[in-house]
Amino acid sequence: MVDKKLGGAGLRGQSAGETALSTVGKSGSGLTYRGYDIKDLAANTRFEEVAYLILYGELPTQAQLDAYRQKLKGLRGLPQALKDVLERIPADAHPMDVMRTGCSMLGNLEMENDFSEQSDITDRLLAAFPSIICYWYRFSHDGVRIETETDDEEIGAHFLHLLHGKKPSQLHADVMSSSLILYAEHEFNASTFTARVCASTLSDMHSCVTGAIGSLRGPLHGGANEAAMELIQDMKDPIDAKTTLKGMLDRKEKIMGFGHAIYRESDPRNAIIKEWSAKLADEFGDSRLYDVSVACEELMWDEKKLFCNADFFHASAYHYMGIPTKLFTPIFVCSRVTGWAAHVMEQRANNRIIRPSADYVGEEPREVMPIAERG
Amino acid sequence: MVDKKLGGAGLRGQSAGETALSTVGKSGSGLTYRGYDIKDLAANTRFEEVAYLILYGELPTQAQLDAYRQKLKGLRGLPQALKDVLERIPADAHPMDVMRTGCSMLGNLEMENDFSEQSDITDRLLAAFPSIICYWYRFSHDGVRIETETDDEEIGAHFLHLLHGKKPSQLHADVMSSSLILYAEHEFNASTFTARVCASTLSDMHSCVTGAIGSLRGPLHGGANEAAMELIQDMKDPIDAKTTLKGMLDRKEKIMGFGHAIYRESDPRNAIIKEWSAKLADEFGDSRLYDVSVACEELMWDEKKLFCNADFFHASAYHYMGIPTKLFTPIFVCSRVTGWAAHVMEQRANNRIIRPSADYVGEEPREVMPIAERG
Repeated sequence: MVDKKLGGAGLRGQSAGETALSTVGKSGSGLTYRGYDIKDLAANTRFEEVAYLILYGELPTQAQLDAYRQKLKGLRGLPQALKDVLERIPADAHPMDVMRTGCSMLGNLEMENDFSEQSDITDRLLAAFPSIICYWYRFSHDGVRIETETDDEEIGAHFLHLLHGKKPSQLHADVMSSSLILYAEHEFNASTFTARVCASTLSDMHSCVTGAIGSLRGPLHGGANEAAMELIQDMKDPIDAKTTLKGMLDRKEKIMGFGHAIYRESDPRNAIIKEWSAKLADEFGDSRLYDVSVACEELMWDEKKLFCNADFFHASAYHYMGIPTKLFTPIFVCSRVTGWAAHVMEQRANNRIIRPSADYVGEEPREVMPIAERG
Repeated sequence: MVDKKLGGAGLRGQSAGETALSTVGKSGSGLTYRGYDIKDLAANTRFEEVAYLILYGELPTQAQLDAYRQKLKGLRGLPQALKDVLERIPADAHPMDVMRTGCSMLGNLEMENDFSEQSDITDRLLAAFPSIICYWYRFSHDGVRIETETDDEEIGAHFLHLLHGKKPSQLHADVMSSSLILYAEHEFNASTFTARVCASTLSDMHSCVTGAIGSLRGPLHGGANEAAMELIQDMKDPIDAKTTLKGMLDRKEKIMGFGHAIYRESDPRNAIIKEWSAKLADEFGDSRLYDVSVACEELMWDEKKLFCNADFFHASAYHYMGIPTKLFTPIFVCSRVTGWAAHVMEQRANNRIIRPSADYVGEEPREVMPIAERG
């Protein structure tokens, strides 16, 4: 069988523009946001600080952070028309379709009339996304209309509060904050690039973010933490985990949560979420999911020299916090909206419409035959 | 003042993949769909034949065309949940936001579960888009809930029927068919490229098309025919037109509807829609809009050697048929969904995730300062 021809080959290694937002896989540091190493940020900041950094350029002072959190707290309520829409989306819909539709609908109700509004629109989306997904989830699954405005200081805690109907523990709030930091920005990945292509037509922020959500929905992009959960959920213990995974490798089955398009030796985000997963396992009092995850990590390295990416230990971590698997990728949206929006602003500030060429491989010139003579 | 630096420069001239769908600006033929010249198609086929060609690879036989039209006719009805959503979008919303939201909502209700459904999903969107935009328009502007299922054989006639509440004349049906042919496909333009980036994550068809609508919404892309209408609507006569335009050129104002990113000497679609606009002016009994458009065309060529693109004479043509200016770009969607979907199918058939690189122009590595020491 002849190999598939890959025209353009996904633009791998081709520059599509400039960015000041992040570096991925540069020597000496795996991932930086505006110059700060991801490990430094995860250890020493909260997510709202990182969102502010990504969107506004610098880490906030305490006064700036307080004001920013206050602003975001005031943007958690949903218009009735949006709630009406969310109530009409069935329980078996894809949660990323809910996010995409919620974002798009909000664009009808709160249009970006001018680019001078771009930061306010972004803050609104950042504050509203947990409300959107949880309002739909609780209505469609539990039949309740939740109040989406809480007094939680942080976005991660707000999400868990809406989902579970009670304030989360400090540990869970810490894990959510850290997790949102890890997912916030990642250079020209496919969803961010979607947002930039859309932005390059000078379209509005809601269109750019709606398009990015659609791309993140793809199983080659955002769905890896959900796939990792499906992989580990039935593994009984580390021995079972290694046997199962070995069998999958022998059968050449696709295993999600390992390796990366850019990173070659490790994903700098893995050690951070892995440590949180260990702490959650302790608190939960049953370390099975953590232990089988460690066994998977060992086996994939021993057999394939493949490392866990950011998604793999997110599966056990989210599960320990009682988050339904289908909401894993929407949480990714609640974080990455910061990176998407910052890239939109960057594209707008120095724009040329993104319009590549194609290699033509189709029919030679031909003439239309009268319809009676076709076939 | 230093020129802006344009990193990546919009990927202009860089190949991002292969296509068998169209050629744009190749020598000897300005625009071809699957090998057929646009002039040949516009003169000798109807839009449903071209949609079939783009989506299924060959022009249909009479039996195939009859069956295809029958299928599309059966797909014009909207689910109640989608109508409920459309009824909650205010009259002052951007009609492209309505299209984007309608497409996204339909994805919740009629999800593409498997790529084997891609053609059926596409045909559904092709049949439903006129219903979506007209249902919203008539409800929000006229307060009526229209029946979206008509017995019109053609998509263009169906659109006009819903909009005006009566069957269109043969001339109007002919113009709509031709117009939809002209807008159906145009290689790797920004909205189509958005759809392909989304498709490259293996996301679903609704996500790809929703994202493409968002990109087409941008004023650098889909809005040119609306901008052309705003330009010409108040011009009294050809002399006034030339004076107005000359003044705009002198003041270096942006004039939409002229020139093109790829075409250098003419847009092959212009002559076709210009001829229809002349016929409509005759029928309408007032040729002012056509005459001022011709004057604009002459002046832009004489002064700037700029030619009309596909959008310019669309303004007068659509206006003569009583189409509100704000619905011009949604009509573009009703046509281009064929090209978008065909590109999604093509991307899926030979996929690598589209993930370019970026040139980093940001901060050097730095360390997080304790929050009390910032500022």
